[in-house]
Amino acid sequence: MRILGIDPGFATIGFGLVEAERGQVHMVTYGAITTPAGLPLSRRLYQISCDMEELIGQLKPDVISIEELFFNTNITTGIAVAHGRGVILCAAEKCGVPLHEYTPSQVKLAVTGYGKAEKRQVMDMTRRLLKLKAVPRPDDAADALALALCHARSFTSRLPQTGNVKETI
Amino acid sequence: MRILGIDPGFATIGFGLVEAERGQVHMVTYGAITTPAGLPLSRRLYQISCDMEELIGQLKPDVISIEELFFNTNITTGIAVAHGRGVILCAAEKCGVPLHEYTPSQVKLAVTGYGKAEKRQVMDMTRRLLKLKAVPRPDDAADALALALCHARSFTSRLPQTGNVKETI
Repeated sequence: MRILGIDPGFATIGFGLVEAERGQVHMVTYGAITTPAGLPLSRRLYQISCDMEELIGQLKPDVISIEELFFNTNITTGIAVAHGRGVILCAAEKCGVPLHEYTPSQVKLAVTGYGKAEKRQVMDMTRRLLKLKAVPRPDDAADALALALCHARSFTSRLPQTGNVKETI
Repeated sequence: MRILGIDPGFATIGFGLVEAERGQVHMVTYGAITTPAGLPLSRRLYQISCDMEELIGQLKPDVISIEELFFNTNITTGIAVAHGRGVILCAAEKCGVPLHEYTPSQVKLAVTGYGKAEKRQVMDMTRRLLKLKAVPRPDDAADALALALCHARSFTSRLPQTGNVKETI
């Protein structure tokens, strides 16, 4: 199963693709879509839409794992991120890729085993679980890989725990 | 000039088209795009995207006037509205229609002459200025017409005030 993690935004959108098979998860690729700060929001959103469709077409994920939005800090930034996230969800739907949403706590719990882990711990565990030499850059890409890992591990834990399960992720 | 006012959202998106020419503004059409509550957000967003592109193709506006988002009440609803607004801005950009954004205060000021007018006053002035028999329904459509009127009146007031102006809106 190819899982594409997405860290939503409007200036930088992190992405990370993992392949999960028979309990093993490995990293395929990661990176970020960026939009120029000087452009109007509508132009940036349209660029995100085009880039997301192209990315999905290239990477052919079976599922997308995307962060849910919670705001208790900067509401202005939050509104702009929600604009970008709307366009990303729309592109995923247009491409027919199923979506799963996870809260930051769910990602932390799935990756580190502790729902209140520090960001640095999540990044380091993501690096170790995917057997990478260094934490991916930018942070948005590392967050996206953590989201993909979260879905891989959550999905595995939901499978029936019997000796006859032949199909795992 | 054909001005399409848009009241953004994800459950109901109001629209209202006016034709503004030589200082006169008249209503062409209005209505609302709605999405079913039972569908996942991504499906609703994709439907909004398709419907917006179809609407713009049918109505052929020269410009779109859309409300800016401000949240000091329900942040959860605000986030969902911002998702929808992102998709709407993206559709407008894709169709190549210029966008203008107005705050609720700017709309109130342009339509009633008072930036802190009550919603009901704005609706009634919209009805009177467009010579309609009744306030349009749903409210989202009336709000959209007020946004279109706001752009028509703001645009007029920005024209040079000389005796030789031949081209007005």
